[in-house]
Amino acid sequence: MPRWEPDGVERLQAAAFELFAEQGFEGTTVAQIAQRAGLTQRTFFNHFADKREVLFGLSSEFQHEIVREIAAGTDALPPLDAVVCALQAADDAIFEERRAAVTRRHEIIDANPELQERELSKGAALTEAIADALHARGLDPDTALLTASAGMLVQQTAIRRWTQPAESRPLRELLSDALHSLRTTVSHGSGRRVAPSRT
Amino acid sequence: MPRWEPDGVERLQAAAFELFAEQGFEGTTVAQIAQRAGLTQRTFFNHFADKREVLFGLSSEFQHEIVREIAAGTDALPPLDAVVCALQAADDAIFEERRAAVTRRHEIIDANPELQERELSKGAALTEAIADALHARGLDPDTALLTASAGMLVQQTAIRRWTQPAESRPLRELLSDALHSLRTTVSHGSGRRVAPSRT
Repeated sequence: MPRWEPDGVERLQAAAFELFAEQGFEGTTVAQIAQRAGLTQRTFFNHFADKREVLFGLSSEFQHEIVREIAAGTDALPPLDAVVCALQAADDAIFEERRAAVTRRHEIIDANPELQERELSKGAALTEAIADALHARGLDPDTALLTASAGMLVQQTAIRRWTQPAESRPLRELLSDALHSLRTTVSHGSGRRVAPSRT
Repeated sequence: MPRWEPDGVERLQAAAFELFAEQGFEGTTVAQIAQRAGLTQRTFFNHFADKREVLFGLSSEFQHEIVREIAAGTDALPPLDAVVCALQAADDAIFEERRAAVTRRHEIIDANPELQERELSKGAALTEAIADALHARGLDPDTALLTASAGMLVQQTAIRRWTQPAESRPLRELLSDALHSLRTTVSHGSGRRVAPSRT
């Protein structure tokens, strides 16, 4: 099996996800993953630093894609709309065709606090990368971070729905829905003032 | 020193924050913290499970307070306004008088990836607690989670500003500002549609 095997990463991920589902994350070794994929451990370590990283390989790809999309976007849209558009394009490219794998990945992460912590860290890093990309497009740092955070909230809301068994709509449609829900939630009290001090 | 020493927790926290600032988090032992506070290690472990928990004691208090405030609130406000009001009350009770300690705490956490992960986990747990409290008040689970997440974004934005050296306004005022900023960011594109599909 040549180590430049073009779909080696995909096969290792698929094998790992199967084994994690069958016998748990802790109970699975790199040797087992490589064997199930029909590849060597050496090939595994050419692609992943450790067992946990198999679950987070797509996160890096997604981050690269979203930053590229924001940098390439036009100025025609307001910032949050531009972020959601860029998220939709990145979701099309990275996640849309992998619903079953992403759903299984979420189940594995939800069952393991250590993996949950890494997932939160990756999410925070992704938020900062989006904020940096917006800042590079001319947004002030505070607005860039708030817009990036709101965009991530839209993405997380959409992904949560998309990985429900009963859900069949494409991810990009769920992003539009989630953006609409966020607008409704946040603007609901427009015109009212929250009391600035207790009297 | 009686172990029911009423301000034992405060003294241990103050001693720990001083030592973390002087010699770093990793380089500080529980023995040193207890000694600096003039208390025993036994007293330390009566209050905290480990050294990290000294930094997160206020998070638990805050969570308790915000959940209580949401449960006790009236139905007169839209959900996000109600959350921000409750956050303002909890901030008044827990954080407002402790600006120096909270600022120092943030510096310590920012310098340590392991503490950052715990901070993110505590934030996620707090978001879920707020969502549960909103659900208990009758909001559907999806809207409750989205509203809680938006509220946490307001809180985090306000805390980030409040811990800047040049900032002197009270936290509750910065929460009102952050809510206004979020509304502007999110509603900016109202009336426009993000393209539901590529054509």
